Amino acid sequence: MNKNVIEQIYDLSDNFSEKAETKLKELLKPYKKGAVGIAQLNPIVGDIEYNATNVVKYITHAQNIGIELVIFPELTLIGNPIGNITKRYPAIAQENFKWLEQISKLTTKTTAIVGFLEQDKESFYHSFAILSNGKIQKIIRKNKDYFEISVNEAKYLIASNIQKAEYSKYRSLAKENSCPLICVNQVGAIDNIVFDGASTVFNKNGEIFARAKEFEEQFLIVNIEKSLKKIYPSISAIQEECKHQNFSLDYEYDLERTYKTIVLGIKDYFWKTGFKRAVLGLSGGLDSTVCAVLLADALGAENVLGISMPSKITSNESKTDAEKLAHNLGINFTVMPIKEIVETTSCNFSNLFENIEKKWGNRYKQSFTNDNIQARSRAVILWGVSNEFGKCLTIATSDKSEAYMGYATINGDMSGGFAPIADVTKTKLFALARWLNKNREVKNAIPESVILKKPGAELAIDPKTGKPLIAEDALMPYEFLDEVIWRIENKNESYEQMLNSEFLYEKKNQISKEQKIEWLDKFYRRMATSLYKGSILPPFVVVDSNSLNKYNYKQPITSSRITYKSLSEEEILNKIQVNNNL
Amino acid sequence: MNKNVIEQIYDLSDNFSEKAETKLKELLKPYKKGAVGIAQLNPIVGDIEYNATNVVKYITHAQNIGIELVIFPELTLIGNPIGNITKRYPAIAQENFKWLEQISKLTTKTTAIVGFLEQDKESFYHSFAILSNGKIQKIIRKNKDYFEISVNEAKYLIASNIQKAEYSKYRSLAKENSCPLICVNQVGAIDNIVFDGASTVFNKNGEIFARAKEFEEQFLIVNIEKSLKKIYPSISAIQEECKHQNFSLDYEYDLERTYKTIVLGIKDYFWKTGFKRAVLGLSGGLDSTVCAVLLADALGAENVLGISMPSKITSNESKTDAEKLAHNLGINFTVMPIKEIVETTSCNFSNLFENIEKKWGNRYKQSFTNDNIQARSRAVILWGVSNEFGKCLTIATSDKSEAYMGYATINGDMSGGFAPIADVTKTKLFALARWLNKNREVKNAIPESVILKKPGAELAIDPKTGKPLIAEDALMPYEFLDEVIWRIENKNESYEQMLNSEFLYEKKNQISKEQKIEWLDKFYRRMATSLYKGSILPPFVVVDSNSLNKYNYKQPITSSRITYKSLSEEEILNKIQVNNNL
Repeated sequence: MNKNVIEQIYDLSDNFSEKAETKLKELLKPYKKGAVGIAQLNPIVGDIEYNATNVVKYITHAQNIGIELVIFPELTLIGNPIGNITKRYPAIAQENFKWLEQISKLTTKTTAIVGFLEQDKESFYHSFAILSNGKIQKIIRKNKDYFEISVNEAKYLIASNIQKAEYSKYRSLAKENSCPLICVNQVGAIDNIVFDGASTVFNKNGEIFARAKEFEEQFLIVNIEKSLKKIYPSISAIQEECKHQNFSLDYEYDLERTYKTIVLGIKDYFWKTGFKRAVLGLSGGLDSTVCAVLLADALGAENVLGISMPSKITSNESKTDAEKLAHNLGINFTVMPIKEIVETTSCNFSNLFENIEKKWGNRYKQSFTNDNIQARSRAVILWGVSNEFGKCLTIATSDKSEAYMGYATINGDMSGGFAPIADVTKTKLFALARWLNKNREVKNAIPESVILKKPGAELAIDPKTGKPLIAEDALMPYEFLDEVIWRIENKNESYEQMLNSEFLYEKKNQISKEQKIEWLDKFYRRMATSLYKGSILPPFVVVDSNSLNKYNYKQPITSSRITYKSLSEEEILNKIQVNNNL
Repeated sequence: MNKNVIEQIYDLSDNFSEKAETKLKELLKPYKKGAVGIAQLNPIVGDIEYNATNVVKYITHAQNIGIELVIFPELTLIGNPIGNITKRYPAIAQENFKWLEQISKLTTKTTAIVGFLEQDKESFYHSFAILSNGKIQKIIRKNKDYFEISVNEAKYLIASNIQKAEYSKYRSLAKENSCPLICVNQVGAIDNIVFDGASTVFNKNGEIFARAKEFEEQFLIVNIEKSLKKIYPSISAIQEECKHQNFSLDYEYDLERTYKTIVLGIKDYFWKTGFKRAVLGLSGGLDSTVCAVLLADALGAENVLGISMPSKITSNESKTDAEKLAHNLGINFTVMPIKEIVETTSCNFSNLFENIEKKWGNRYKQSFTNDNIQARSRAVILWGVSNEFGKCLTIATSDKSEAYMGYATINGDMSGGFAPIADVTKTKLFALARWLNKNREVKNAIPESVILKKPGAELAIDPKTGKPLIAEDALMPYEFLDEVIWRIENKNESYEQMLNSEFLYEKKNQISKEQKIEWLDKFYRRMATSLYKGSILPPFVVVDSNSLNKYNYKQPITSSRITYKSLSEEEILNKIQVNNNL
């Protein structure tokens, strides 16, 4: 059965071969007048040559296939966001303008709207240039959220890089102005921020007329008058709609978005910084396992190396699980026992610590020091591999629940050049692991036993059980912990509000008020420490925008003494009197 | 000889003992009407109880000694800057208001102006409350840079936390309004930002009438009508005036400010995050040496532990220098050779690397891997000590020149919870070392040989000389490197501007244009790498505000491909054609 014309157009729109362009031009003939191409690009900040080359590629494509207008996102030529680059390197604005001028010469048949950085004396503006007939025809400063243009008698409102949550505002704008609104978005990650694409066209009634793909570059062609349109599915939009009002372990609605966000985040961080390969420790635990899957999907299995580094505490099951996983993923795998290194280091420590104890005292009787040597020796090995092999970066495998609790070893599992899952909570990671097993091409790559076993760092033996210490025993149940995080990030709840709400965990398990207070206190106490630890955690993919000190939310490290608890007037008065001997 | 009354007042103003207050009250009698106390406090962000206790202490003091008005800095009750704390924890504004209400009850004799965070529905304001007669009399939102108040018929303009550079603006404001302007500043560090104090009073002619101490809490008492005043010296102001127009190795004018900024930065980071002690590796090199001095002065010698961790490459001189330094400073010192740990690790590496090479190839023939094992083994030891002993933090000793060049080992010398000198260039560190030897109470604590030897990581032997590799041979002369950094941070110069300017190093040494190009290219190439390395460098004291990615200046890590070079129109056109096969 033949595909209809519109399907064929969308199949060919990203194919720049001569043959495809000829075919596409033919198909587009009836839509030629009023055809608009939306170039959803993935720019690199500061690499004007790379960005300009892409702009030229899409303009040439538009001209070859007979499109009237092609639109590029905000700051396409210089990349977005640019931080303070102009403060230190103002000349970069002149450079992107020089490129713009040369690009304008190529616009012989098609009008192009290109986002660039405009300089006017000491000031810099996010502006759009209208290029046509071989010249820069007009420059429009983006003073408000959108601007208006007319091309061959058709009028459009243009916006760029709009957040999903603001779509309703833009619907209204289109409707109020009775004019189609084209929102052209960039795609791809700049550091920890992933732009998900999904450029959208609203018709003059404010309805969604067309939408580009998510998490991919795309050349989306529309013709509003002639109904040339396609609405690609948006998992981010679905996720917005499905957002739970209460904490739930049902993460299903958000797992595809989480997966695609992290995979694109890894991919772009690597190639934009010049890295190609990743090395990580494979412990057989959930964190490193999920990291390995995501890395394999982002970088290609051949570019990932997992190293199993068993110590005397590592169980046989963990070793087997690591190997099975590597085999299932097809990543490189090797084993390097750390027993000898750990023993040599531990041995050396005892004398040293005795010396220091004589001076300082204050030595912890039961410390994690020796346990941590294992985690740190592993990091020494991973960074050694990163040094020895070209373009290879070490991966930190910390997850979000443990990052909040500071339950991670500095220079150990916290150490790396990039942290893929540091914004994913443990309960969500379990759901993600199951989702990966079900939805990836190779099914069940993650051994079931990894998902079934209780998380623990496998650095120490619990004296009570004689088995490796379980993280939940040292912290609190992950289900409870993750709900605290969820309430803080999504509801801005205070200590008292949490104490007085019923947690999901409480619905299933009988716990005393004292127990709940103990866990909440522990949470806040540990979160205070995590502020300092978080300051040395490597960059990570932001999955939830309100995550601690990474994107939307910044809190000073030295604010660790916030109590988060509310005091009564009497308590305050009493404290004032006592503290000041009044 | 008896001190005059004014000198006695200033000697006693910070003494809160009953005896001192009685004496001070007596001395202040003639100045009572119109006396204003400026409470230059060091708040802790989020610790309302601590901040409020200090406010009450100063109000009580003011009332005890008979001052009419006492003024506190912006956001005193909650601490400043607060980042986005209110976004996650809006209840904190209600909390600081509850404390404010209780504090107001104590203002029976003196009027107090207290900076706090005001909440009005969903919005938050930096506001000042006027407290007197046991009540909150008025709340003033800080909409512009200053506000006006009248107390007992006297009129004042009030400003807070003004940057030194803006003083001329405030002089004019006082003059234009023909009204004294009181600028009350906080002091102390919040994370990496050090507020230096120096609260200043301008008289109605715009002249500096009084100025508080720098880098210390102080209660500065003034009476503008009765000429009760004192102008404490401001090294920051001197430094602003002396700023060189050209790069110079004469750092003399800025060393006291640099020293005091870092010492206060360390001190406040430690106590505000709950740490007390520091452990660092003492290599006998300049970086760790200067760090040790600054730490000893900030935390007390007894709270600092220097560990000499010689490898087979470490020279005898380095070992002796480290020991001498520790002795001179009176810090704790111990030796722990790392030969055994390094050998065990290296040994284990050879097999591992052969395995990986079979899969990946791409192995560096001459790599730094084995050299770096030394640096990383040292960090394992330091973090072990940090784990084993209470409130003890590991120090990263990287300096600014090397941080810019990425010439530092991840999980090695770059690793720590805090980096005291990561914003001080190498040539400035040499000057600082000499300054410390001359100006500290204990003279010449730093062995002369530390200052005389050429810097190098002592991780590898230079095959050409048979001696440890010198950093300048691997990089470029520090004098040249530091001038590049200076020109970028202070002059925003481009590649071409630098190429066409004469460097200080060029005035003294004949170098070819090719050599200069080679160094500049190396600088920009290495700086691109340092963006990623810098993302895992711990927090440090900001000494120069335009430093890379730490305070005023932010640049995406993934912008590492900026060329910084300017292209001609022809070159751009040519690139467009070649890249797009046009």
